[in-house]
Amino acid sequence: MPDFIAPIEGAVCPLPLPHDQAIVIGHGSGGRMTQSLIQQVFLKHFCYAPLQAGNDFARLPMDGKLGSMAVSTDMHIVSPLFFNGGDIGRLAICGTVNDISMSGAISLYLTAGFILEEGLPIATLEKVVESMAKAAEEAGVQIVAGDTKVVEKGKADGIFINTAGFGWIPENSQIGGEMARPGDVVLVSGTVGEHGMAVLAARGELGLLMDISSDVAPLNHLIQDVLKAAPHTHVLRDPTRGGLATTLNEIASQSKVNITIDETAVPVQPAVRTACELLGFDPLYVANEGKVIVITPADEAEIALSAMRNNKYGKYAARIGEVNPEPQGRVLLRTSIGGLRLLDTLAGEMLPRIC
Amino acid sequence: MPDFIAPIEGAVCPLPLPHDQAIVIGHGSGGRMTQSLIQQVFLKHFCYAPLQAGNDFARLPMDGKLGSMAVSTDMHIVSPLFFNGGDIGRLAICGTVNDISMSGAISLYLTAGFILEEGLPIATLEKVVESMAKAAEEAGVQIVAGDTKVVEKGKADGIFINTAGFGWIPENSQIGGEMARPGDVVLVSGTVGEHGMAVLAARGELGLLMDISSDVAPLNHLIQDVLKAAPHTHVLRDPTRGGLATTLNEIASQSKVNITIDETAVPVQPAVRTACELLGFDPLYVANEGKVIVITPADEAEIALSAMRNNKYGKYAARIGEVNPEPQGRVLLRTSIGGLRLLDTLAGEMLPRIC
Repeated sequence: MPDFIAPIEGAVCPLPLPHDQAIVIGHGSGGRMTQSLIQQVFLKHFCYAPLQAGNDFARLPMDGKLGSMAVSTDMHIVSPLFFNGGDIGRLAICGTVNDISMSGAISLYLTAGFILEEGLPIATLEKVVESMAKAAEEAGVQIVAGDTKVVEKGKADGIFINTAGFGWIPENSQIGGEMARPGDVVLVSGTVGEHGMAVLAARGELGLLMDISSDVAPLNHLIQDVLKAAPHTHVLRDPTRGGLATTLNEIASQSKVNITIDETAVPVQPAVRTACELLGFDPLYVANEGKVIVITPADEAEIALSAMRNNKYGKYAARIGEVNPEPQGRVLLRTSIGGLRLLDTLAGEMLPRIC
Repeated sequence: MPDFIAPIEGAVCPLPLPHDQAIVIGHGSGGRMTQSLIQQVFLKHFCYAPLQAGNDFARLPMDGKLGSMAVSTDMHIVSPLFFNGGDIGRLAICGTVNDISMSGAISLYLTAGFILEEGLPIATLEKVVESMAKAAEEAGVQIVAGDTKVVEKGKADGIFINTAGFGWIPENSQIGGEMARPGDVVLVSGTVGEHGMAVLAARGELGLLMDISSDVAPLNHLIQDVLKAAPHTHVLRDPTRGGLATTLNEIASQSKVNITIDETAVPVQPAVRTACELLGFDPLYVANEGKVIVITPADEAEIALSAMRNNKYGKYAARIGEVNPEPQGRVLLRTSIGGLRLLDTLAGEMLPRIC
């Protein structure tokens, strides 16, 4: 996440993308530079309706069948390969299971593609593969096809993994980033910012004393719990690359609404808050890999919240804000001292690259 | 191709895979080292029936639906990115369209994942994306989901692309590598070895005078033509990495039969033959990206052959051999001087890596 996203309107202007220039790290940040690349290179040539919808999944009607298919793909790169709370294998399974689940679909099948760098210890590969199998078992999905390529030393970074997957969307389900409506309530399934900070910690960039564990987890069961409790849910989206702030901006743009959140309502672990303060990061922009934003009509918000809190991955779920008609396409933050400020999409990278 | 392949029995013994060792280039060759890695690492932990079937596609029954789904994934790495007759973009689309088509399925949708190396010119990326769009249009498939990641300079090789895809297998279709039967006829859709030699030529490794163009092409329309003409076709498989010889060995192992082919019947372009002779390569082991092996009952062979010859990608289709009961799991070559020799699977690499 994010997969290719439709041209963003409103507050988030893609940056110009001069074609005599080269790819830089910021093009992979999930922010405005990523949007430019997607809009001006990929969507320019790939003119397919499901891509243009701008969700983490494509919704594909199947001729003569009830319901439709949700499809998603994710390229996984992370350095180091192992970190507190997870590894690239668990990340690869959870990332795609979660993207498919954001459609309301039942996740069914994954494919796995590997690029291995010459010199990678086979024992390391096996640890990653084992972790994938364990995460797939937890999520209840099958890995049904795979492919492996090997490149010369120095032409990759240990292991890269692609997972693509699909699931079945029940008939009449209408969940999507474009469905937020004024009056809706914005929920998040737990504390934000752990994954990004755990990866930084694993790189030794936070000093030794921080005990932060990545939240990487498959959310498909939690999401099914939410949909059973709150069947009129409008939006489900996981705030991965770019964090809560970037993801809320995507939703505000797609739905042409304002989203206003309360700074004090957003749950953040004390260790994450401290680490962010020390390093000058904002936890609202730090990646998560086991959290979901849920936007529901007001009358289903409480029951959705308790459904999340009853799941082991949603214990710290919270109500963080609401959807308003104006200003369209913008996200506002009600600060702890009562002011309102714009919570914008970053242009490139705030953090060193973590995914 | 090949995607994860089931444990190979019979003549092809996987090599031992000491876990204190590291990945080497040969693990990506498609030969016996690749089989060892798949069997002893991937299939050890990924215990899912569709993976174990050993085809280039997974066949997935869909609850309560007619027919089933064919799913496949492929990681694409090629150096250089552009070569005579194609580029990594065309390769990425055709590779997955072809793998899905090998099930007899109608190819429908693809996903595309990109890993970009910092410093890649945006104009180069756009050329690749444009080529993908063109190949997808030719094949009649839609790209419905995508993802892009960027890695630091020196941590990738320009562009890596994953394509995963799926199609719909009509009810009652039973095509697969395990379906070859004694008495069947072995056909190939055209001359072999162009792709591998075109990539080597693009690296400047063949000298300047060789005019060899890659055969990379989407074969889905040709395959539908074959299936209309010869509906009882038993096996369809594209001889990519490892070439015709390796692919025939996979089929002989899966079907527990002998396959015997005539050296003089296998079509090879004169320029490819010359280049192979100069470099000491065997064209039967060189990769193809636009050819398919078709194995049919004897009474449908001629009509399948003319169906191929009527398609622009099958003009030089030929009957190259037959299926016999013994020796099980082995491929034999009837040489031009009338002898019989074993056509084995290579252990690692014959060629410099090309995919």
